[in-house]
Amino acid sequence: MTRWEPGAAERLQEAALDLFATRGFEQTTATEIAQAVGLTERTFFRHFSDKREVLFHGQHLFTQAFLDGVQAAPPDASPMEIVASALRSATSSFPDERRPHSRSRQAVIDQNPALQERERHKLASLAAAIADALRARGVDDLAATLAAESGVTVFKVAFIRWLREDERRSLTDLAEDVLRELLALARDPS
Amino acid sequence: MTRWEPGAAERLQEAALDLFATRGFEQTTATEIAQAVGLTERTFFRHFSDKREVLFHGQHLFTQAFLDGVQAAPPDASPMEIVASALRSATSSFPDERRPHSRSRQAVIDQNPALQERERHKLASLAAAIADALRARGVDDLAATLAAESGVTVFKVAFIRWLREDERRSLTDLAEDVLRELLALARDPS
Repeated sequence: MTRWEPGAAERLQEAALDLFATRGFEQTTATEIAQAVGLTERTFFRHFSDKREVLFHGQHLFTQAFLDGVQAAPPDASPMEIVASALRSATSSFPDERRPHSRSRQAVIDQNPALQERERHKLASLAAAIADALRARGVDDLAATLAAESGVTVFKVAFIRWLREDERRSLTDLAEDVLRELLALARDPS
Repeated sequence: MTRWEPGAAERLQEAALDLFATRGFEQTTATEIAQAVGLTERTFFRHFSDKREVLFHGQHLFTQAFLDGVQAAPPDASPMEIVASALRSATSSFPDERRPHSRSRQAVIDQNPALQERERHKLASLAAAIADALRARGVDDLAATLAAESGVTVFKVAFIRWLREDERRSLTDLAEDVLRELLALARDPS
């Protein structure tokens, strides 16, 4: 019989981040993560397929937040306006309280090439999903690809800024600024 | 005494592509690649650190072609004009004769997640190198990052189009079209 562990995934994630940060990602095992919060290795693997997965849990919700924003844009919105709507939707799921958690997570990723690879893969899949959603709205193939890639670039750049120690603006405001800068660059003939 | 093998790297690359395409990347060994062109495994490893490297040989020249284009832009060029110059420089090193080779190479990469990862890593490093070159020209930090990322997106998208079976335009023309579309998207308010 499987015992229900309330909040087990979240507790495992927090414990994993602590251990990865203090001991290193490579040096930490799934068993140790589970034991740190009084759970078993079996419980760990009920929630995550591997140790790496702990850091990328919720990818589906992350992508969905962008797609919800694509849906929410008015019918006559331009591709870049749809992308702006997707960014507002996705960034609103990163409230400022989450900043310390996101910082710890990013510090672990920045120290491990395999995790960076996973991060790049995640962002590539996200761009493909947004492009599909734009095409489904009738945006032409090339415009959909370029708008989606630009949206992911904006998210990526805004996210790095949001994690800076001295940064106080919200991720939503930062993404808006970065998108505005991208549009200004494209509009500047010289 | 090391015997000089004229064109050994190129012969090994061609043989590797053939074997990867017919037999599969995983199923092909460095020794088999070397034997296919009458060379030894030792010669193979004098040219390439591993089997994967055969497909990514010349990355340094590829990046350098972009950086040469950054240098070649006039002093008063805008960030996106500098990126356009980088794209012209880089794409001119892919003449149409190279299209069949690039197609075979891409087909191998598309079938292997580890190679796709390497490709993504290559493009991420390229974007970082272009951004650094823009900063060295005095472009501000954020604009440099965004212009460089946009340039790599344009290259990536144009390259996929260039490889299509029915595509006849040059990579330079395609990149110019894709960049124009990206700028148009950013300029279109609705």
